[in-house]
Amino acid sequence: MSKDIVRPAILAGFMELLPNEQIMFNRMKDTIRKNYEKFGFLPIDTPNIERSEILLAKGGGETEQQMYRFERGKTDMSLRFDLTVPLARYVAQHYSELEFPFRRYHIGKVYRGERNQRGRFREFYQCDIDIVGNNTIDIINDAEIPSIIYSIFKELDFGKFTIEINNRRLLSGFFNSLGIEDPTYVLRAIDKVEKIGVEKLIGELEKLDIPKDNIDKIINFINIEGSNNEILEHLEQLEIEDSTFIQGLDELKTINKYIQLFGVPESHYKINVIIARGLDYYTGTIYETFLDDHRNIGSICSGGRYDDLASHYTTQKLPGVGISIGLTRLFDQLVYEGLLNIEEKALTDILIIPMEGCTEEGVKLSKKLRDEDIGTHLHLESGRMGRKFGYADKLNIPYVVVIGESEIENEIYALRDMKTGNQEEYTLAELIDKFKK
Amino acid sequence: MSKDIVRPAILAGFMELLPNEQIMFNRMKDTIRKNYEKFGFLPIDTPNIERSEILLAKGGGETEQQMYRFERGKTDMSLRFDLTVPLARYVAQHYSELEFPFRRYHIGKVYRGERNQRGRFREFYQCDIDIVGNNTIDIINDAEIPSIIYSIFKELDFGKFTIEINNRRLLSGFFNSLGIEDPTYVLRAIDKVEKIGVEKLIGELEKLDIPKDNIDKIINFINIEGSNNEILEHLEQLEIEDSTFIQGLDELKTINKYIQLFGVPESHYKINVIIARGLDYYTGTIYETFLDDHRNIGSICSGGRYDDLASHYTTQKLPGVGISIGLTRLFDQLVYEGLLNIEEKALTDILIIPMEGCTEEGVKLSKKLRDEDIGTHLHLESGRMGRKFGYADKLNIPYVVVIGESEIENEIYALRDMKTGNQEEYTLAELIDKFKK
Repeated sequence: MSKDIVRPAILAGFMELLPNEQIMFNRMKDTIRKNYEKFGFLPIDTPNIERSEILLAKGGGETEQQMYRFERGKTDMSLRFDLTVPLARYVAQHYSELEFPFRRYHIGKVYRGERNQRGRFREFYQCDIDIVGNNTIDIINDAEIPSIIYSIFKELDFGKFTIEINNRRLLSGFFNSLGIEDPTYVLRAIDKVEKIGVEKLIGELEKLDIPKDNIDKIINFINIEGSNNEILEHLEQLEIEDSTFIQGLDELKTINKYIQLFGVPESHYKINVIIARGLDYYTGTIYETFLDDHRNIGSICSGGRYDDLASHYTTQKLPGVGISIGLTRLFDQLVYEGLLNIEEKALTDILIIPMEGCTEEGVKLSKKLRDEDIGTHLHLESGRMGRKFGYADKLNIPYVVVIGESEIENEIYALRDMKTGNQEEYTLAELIDKFKK
Repeated sequence: MSKDIVRPAILAGFMELLPNEQIMFNRMKDTIRKNYEKFGFLPIDTPNIERSEILLAKGGGETEQQMYRFERGKTDMSLRFDLTVPLARYVAQHYSELEFPFRRYHIGKVYRGERNQRGRFREFYQCDIDIVGNNTIDIINDAEIPSIIYSIFKELDFGKFTIEINNRRLLSGFFNSLGIEDPTYVLRAIDKVEKIGVEKLIGELEKLDIPKDNIDKIINFINIEGSNNEILEHLEQLEIEDSTFIQGLDELKTINKYIQLFGVPESHYKINVIIARGLDYYTGTIYETFLDDHRNIGSICSGGRYDDLASHYTTQKLPGVGISIGLTRLFDQLVYEGLLNIEEKALTDILIIPMEGCTEEGVKLSKKLRDEDIGTHLHLESGRMGRKFGYADKLNIPYVVVIGESEIENEIYALRDMKTGNQEEYTLAELIDKFKK
């Protein structure tokens, strides 16, 4: 009977890794999770599929176009496109069973049918935390968030990074004070200043019919520089009387004070009065994080404060503050920039290779090591010794023990260091001692 | 502006947990993962969505009915319904980049639009391992698998369990020897014997036109009892000359010898000549695992050996052996049977509650503890002290430190044990010493 072979391939725009890469990816994911847990965040795990009505409650737009949406029976359902909408639904649904402030972390896959291009994935991991308050949530929480970012990226060790912080109220208040009611277009222009430069920005602002003296004020505003304290002083000296501006400045000052108590050094955060992160969701503090030597990657961890998380699902007022790490894209970029050393150590420390007739002793040794929680890989197939050493090499297993008759007789194990090629003899007790954590 | 509230609810047949339950669920998942890694299995993570052509290559049947299938653009795609088909596709696709034997673990969500009923979920976690060989894979691997099951369920500690082991070749060979060419219906009848009893089974076999002396032989066969060695002796004494039977018996004997060397005590595994686990996939060894005091839950970890993993995607012959734990269903059943203590310790050890005016010191203490990798939760909201203690209580945080002026003055922290209500004084160094792992 002839058989049809289906060509094995995944869909375009999806990420799939080889085991060595996957180990690296998981290490990053574990580091993020460990830090989230250390700071008191609780895990949740919502269904990847929700009713479309839930996901679209906020109103569609681009999101609706990108949703993987389908029907089953008479139910209109979709794959989630972020972890924020599921959080909102979760908190509204389980409101009476949760303790507030509700600190939750969520690491999971989300789906967006975006146009297929480098660095964009249709399935990707988000790693989110949020602190959600019942009615209110203290501003000092906004200072704690950067300390979590700091703790994670210090441990991940991809080089120097900077957490940039702003407050949406500063921008809103500033534009209020200039009499600009809808600052959408102005903000969009300002957003490009890093790329286009100040001269072109002035041109764009002129096109928007902004009066000359206001353009001067805007340019002056976005040019505010110096240390974090100096920036805050400059903002003070603008003497803007708008109450929104004043609130924003007060909040930034509080954050600036507490962020250092939470352990983020001055070198690793920076007030940046320009960053806005869209207009419709965040209402207060805003965060972006950049690798100083790889700013081209874009922000590697972003978020902010919002007034009301779940207004589409409940009448309870639920303000909060949170961040998200887009892990799949970040991983892809880090590999692309050569910042990840994929060839790192395997998950197991030792490969046991029993010689012919010595399998029983190999099995026994594997049991003894595993009983001590030492990650152990056992090679049971027949074949040439060289290929088996090659196997350890390809899997990056750092040590090999060959079990032969002399090893059995003397109860001594020759441990080969695969990096140096050195071989040393160990008793079982010494072997356990060397590898036990 | 009046707003429409969408009722917050998940789809029927999906599991969503509260944080305390989720912590428990994650602990189980982590235990499984840790053991898989300890035994040398490598992680993979395939897309949840695959081309329908890939998932249906084996041929549809019930599976096809249950698939979440949809089109996007002109692409026919579906959510995966298990982790075995994606493994087959993965190994075929990445064949030249993998090292064999390829030991992979995969923990992920799969989807089946099953009829909605207790204990059945439409989205559920599977935790799979497989050892896939290139052309061949040694039978001793089949003895290692139970030692992984043993290691996991010993650590999970849900009470005494038994790994039941059989070999499909024993059954096939036995039916061959009786001249029964298609044993499907006979096996289906035998499968029910635990429920219906021997008398009714005889009736069913008579209906299938099995001659009287063969019925006697079948009843004799399924009644084989005793220790594992005794069962193997009985099987030997049947003197069945069928070569398939002889191979199956040889394999079982080898497994019986090595399984003990791998550390599974005689008390925790049992040869059971009846179990078959369907007919089309497994070709050799078969595993099922039962909680002795909760057999009604069904098998909590099953699997077996197959001749060819990926024949639909490659002409390479890839035999293997593996198991799967259906974690979502298992968790649900354990909760239902009262075997899980949901109210266990939180992920953080300490809740810091700063009194009014003492927030700065609270923040500083949180930083110092977190710097030592001590999980610390900080309560920053205003409100009554009693409610904040209640917060620690509800989240199962075992210790509370209240920061007041005297604590700041004396640099002494009063640590309240939330279980006993006892309060003891600690210096910072003592506090770190107590909680640092």
